[in-house]
Amino acid sequence: MGDMTNPVLVEITRGPLVESVHRGAVAVADAQGRLRLAVGDTEAAIFPRSALKPIQAVPLIESGAAARFGLSDEEVALACASHSGEPQHTTRIAAWLQRIGCSVTDLACGPHRPVHEATANAMILRGERWTPLHNNCSGKHTGFMTLARGLGENPAGYQQLEHPVQQAVETTLKEMAGLHGALPHGIDGCTVPNFALPLAALARAMAAFADPADLPPSRAQACARIVAAMTAYPELVAGTGRSCTLLMRQSPNIAVKTGAEGVYVAILPSLGLGVALKVDDGTTRAAEAAIAAVLIALNAVGDEAAAHALAHAPVFNTRNVQVGERRVPAGLFR
Amino acid sequence: MGDMTNPVLVEITRGPLVESVHRGAVAVADAQGRLRLAVGDTEAAIFPRSALKPIQAVPLIESGAAARFGLSDEEVALACASHSGEPQHTTRIAAWLQRIGCSVTDLACGPHRPVHEATANAMILRGERWTPLHNNCSGKHTGFMTLARGLGENPAGYQQLEHPVQQAVETTLKEMAGLHGALPHGIDGCTVPNFALPLAALARAMAAFADPADLPPSRAQACARIVAAMTAYPELVAGTGRSCTLLMRQSPNIAVKTGAEGVYVAILPSLGLGVALKVDDGTTRAAEAAIAAVLIALNAVGDEAAAHALAHAPVFNTRNVQVGERRVPAGLFR
Repeated sequence: MGDMTNPVLVEITRGPLVESVHRGAVAVADAQGRLRLAVGDTEAAIFPRSALKPIQAVPLIESGAAARFGLSDEEVALACASHSGEPQHTTRIAAWLQRIGCSVTDLACGPHRPVHEATANAMILRGERWTPLHNNCSGKHTGFMTLARGLGENPAGYQQLEHPVQQAVETTLKEMAGLHGALPHGIDGCTVPNFALPLAALARAMAAFADPADLPPSRAQACARIVAAMTAYPELVAGTGRSCTLLMRQSPNIAVKTGAEGVYVAILPSLGLGVALKVDDGTTRAAEAAIAAVLIALNAVGDEAAAHALAHAPVFNTRNVQVGERRVPAGLFR
Repeated sequence: MGDMTNPVLVEITRGPLVESVHRGAVAVADAQGRLRLAVGDTEAAIFPRSALKPIQAVPLIESGAAARFGLSDEEVALACASHSGEPQHTTRIAAWLQRIGCSVTDLACGPHRPVHEATANAMILRGERWTPLHNNCSGKHTGFMTLARGLGENPAGYQQLEHPVQQAVETTLKEMAGLHGALPHGIDGCTVPNFALPLAALARAMAAFADPADLPPSRAQACARIVAAMTAYPELVAGTGRSCTLLMRQSPNIAVKTGAEGVYVAILPSLGLGVALKVDDGTTRAAEAAIAAVLIALNAVGDEAAAHALAHAPVFNTRNVQVGERRVPAGLFR
């Protein structure tokens, strides 16, 4: 993160006072990298975390691996997903793993409790333990192994920076973001490399999905298929009640993706624009509110109900009494 | 919150970069209100949230209600608790409720999932639903109803600002914090009023617990009993693995208490000081790290292991790979 102090993107009130604030930065760019909106420091390097997933899926399609293994649009959506571990996610990924000759034990991601609480509770009742299949990234990992197979490489070790799968991801990211040279990298929550880049460059990469005219044809087709798959299956990209799912369902012409530590990106094909934002403190409640407010300001949402509900939401307590609200300062994105 | 930009209290790194930052303010005061340390804006009004609980327990003792109903030190600790809903908490509170002629249905707090995951999972397996008894504030609420009984008032409505119980809390807070006039208030997560005050004044109120010499004798005794109960039963003030419990267990001469939205307070009897801090964005991981660093800087911890583990902690991913760290910038509190 840079030294500049970013503005407050989201306020949380209680009674008459602002109780907490979330600072951050927002970039809206076109496919040539021109910034249409810049709030805060858009040049500091950030980790996109799971907002990188649409880009991580590009080599899977572009290489021909997806076609060779007959990937459905549902599976492409799952490759881009931070899914909630519901049966609709895990059953599809389990079948896909089997089709490429891999199994749950080949997944490099660790197990974690399904994000979907009812699924987790049902597993507890059945005496089941979560596996790497329930990791929100298991679709991405299955995509990585599919790509490895397509490249004629051993899927084992696909999570290593030196593996051709991760090299393909880094090259694709740099090309789509207009960057050169090695990118700083860290290890993501699911153990694959995550690459850091300026927020403005991440917005540009998302704009390349929205306006792929200048990309090589094979990549343009890959980008179009990814956007089509995400927008066709919003419930597979996240899950029941999740913000990505709600936003895409109410605005079927846009693709959005959240990332850990307060990241959110959006692909806006009808405007030819990409959006990237990072909340300084990494809080999801703020990233959700901020992306919704940006989409409203850009007139990018269809039915605005879901976006408004995220951008300006009542805060309830354990008695379902409204005690405050979550809101974006007026005029921030105008 | 004020308009001043507070400094970064805690950084979260990933690989070579700082991924997220948490800003906030810290006040360390003596019982006369002199600030020994002030980082950031200590005059802006904040909600103490559950860090108010030691003060909310003062009228319970001072009024004689605790003595009349034979409250044990364990019950006094639970009155100050944000407990994890473990059997060690709920069984004691259930028995206490019965002793004052009240029941779970009299609790004004709503139900929520026990903070302690094993307890929640065991309840799911038994087909049980959480009740207001599992609310982390149920000990405080039982204390409020005990106070109502002691005052000869009807416990019903004890959560209303106008009820003598809440009036006693507001008066006690103002006197201990050195404030005059009505305080701004909001509704807390558990439906009782929470009063806003400057961070410096909250630190002063905590210092009054640490150095009660100037308080009226009945209040000084109440404060001493509360500190003794919290330090004697750290596992009842929070629960298994929780930061308040760990810090108090390793430093039996101090009392600490967390509050929602990034608040932490500490009572340091051997130094005669009180500490209060608020993380701007409301994040617990940052409040825990910051309070630990402040306590280390003040030489207020006994065995420093728990405090160091909170102030400078590795961040692990789902594969238990270290991906970064949580740290407090060097020299911030020196």
